Amino acid sequence: MYKNITSFQNPLIKQIVLLQEKSRERRKTELFVIEGQREISLAIKGGYLLKNLLFCPEIISEEEIFILKETANSEAEFIEIASDIYEKLAYRSSTEGVLAIAHAKNLNISNLKPESKNPLILVAEAPEKPGNIGAILRTADAAKVDAVIIANPKTDMFNPNIIRSSVGCLFTNNVATGSTSEIISYLKEKNINIYCAALQASVQYDSIDFKKATAIVVGTEATGLSEEWIQNSTQNIIIPMQGEIDSMNVSVAAGILIFEAKRQRNFL
Amino acid sequence: MYKNITSFQNPLIKQIVLLQEKSRERRKTELFVIEGQREISLAIKGGYLLKNLLFCPEIISEEEIFILKETANSEAEFIEIASDIYEKLAYRSSTEGVLAIAHAKNLNISNLKPESKNPLILVAEAPEKPGNIGAILRTADAAKVDAVIIANPKTDMFNPNIIRSSVGCLFTNNVATGSTSEIISYLKEKNINIYCAALQASVQYDSIDFKKATAIVVGTEATGLSEEWIQNSTQNIIIPMQGEIDSMNVSVAAGILIFEAKRQRNFL
Repeated sequence: MYKNITSFQNPLIKQIVLLQEKSRERRKTELFVIEGQREISLAIKGGYLLKNLLFCPEIISEEEIFILKETANSEAEFIEIASDIYEKLAYRSSTEGVLAIAHAKNLNISNLKPESKNPLILVAEAPEKPGNIGAILRTADAAKVDAVIIANPKTDMFNPNIIRSSVGCLFTNNVATGSTSEIISYLKEKNINIYCAALQASVQYDSIDFKKATAIVVGTEATGLSEEWIQNSTQNIIIPMQGEIDSMNVSVAAGILIFEAKRQRNFL
Repeated sequence: MYKNITSFQNPLIKQIVLLQEKSRERRKTELFVIEGQREISLAIKGGYLLKNLLFCPEIISEEEIFILKETANSEAEFIEIASDIYEKLAYRSSTEGVLAIAHAKNLNISNLKPESKNPLILVAEAPEKPGNIGAILRTADAAKVDAVIIANPKTDMFNPNIIRSSVGCLFTNNVATGSTSEIISYLKEKNINIYCAALQASVQYDSIDFKKATAIVVGTEATGLSEEWIQNSTQNIIIPMQGEIDSMNVSVAAGILIFEAKRQRNFL
């Protein structure tokens, strides 16, 4: 038998709403909310610890809950909730039937584990839209890059819109955040080449040997990369553009650059 | 002196709201709304005829209006509007100061102009999100592909969300729409190779010779391409994915494929 919540006034329900809406609340409590079966499974696989898992037995089957229970940390408290409460909390209303409160990881660059000898790393500076961060994380997962680093992030990475648009790839990647200075120090110390997507003194992206230790760095669509990146760039690179508009979506540009590196590395 | 509108009750103002909101109204009248200076300029450059241009003199300068007047078709009626009306109509509120009612073009595939001898064409079947269509149009502009064809579109292409997310690249590309059958006939008749992004019996995308006449065809993230495409495919292609999640954002995948073709063609 599981604990059961039927009231909107329950403190846990109120906390979920706060964690969904307020970055400050997430930072203060070091907790965040994950919605959806696949997303929760990926978080468990990625070593995230759950505090509570709330499910709606009218939507999700006993077998599915059993699998989550078997794989999650043993301290995770499983709780039944009524469907009207679930629907109020969920973004994707009636399709999933499950959400969790999880413990955040400290994503600071200082915690990033040493990579392979010739790592391929994707860095994005201050990306504006959660949807773009989500698309970048999906590409990074597909390419199995060694790390995704967000420089000077504009939001915490446990923002529900990032989790949702990454379809859980926030949990499958080695993700780190830090200031631009910290990240440049990290890359230089490890002798990782820094290739900045920037117009100044740039070469065509496919002329670079990406088989060596590589960080590909992309900036915002509006203002590009900050001066600090340009000053510390091994080589600036461009994707030749021949149209009327001299800009691509940042997640598309990142995908083109990362997969050129993958192609050169024979997708190993 | 320009005509001046100060009332929300003006029939033209009411029509703009309808055209922004209702696909049916756009189809019925063959008109649509463009917001923003750059977007309107690109539409004029792309041969679109304006019916009305409404501007807010408190936001946009006389010089900027003069340039639009010089370049637009002479029948375009220029009208001043009050800033409270403008702000109610505009999505990006106070930044632009100008919007236009334009005549739609018939984008049917039968009107698509003959391409170069070895065209590079991007086809997307039934893309779900205007944001993805916008990103695809931006990539297609950057790559200067010969045409972007939307098969079985889920919305009309003059949807304001498509125009906005394409930052005007709807007007800089050769865009066509049609049923999957019509498009396959068109490509076959012109001896254009059809490379479908699909898992079945596929080869790695970079093993294809994209220097020949090429259509790269992508499906939806949810269900992929329809059986008709697979049956008429010259060769199915895949982007190798090594992560936990076996899917990328559709506009990112299209970007990777199109720019591999561009790389092989030396970006010519």
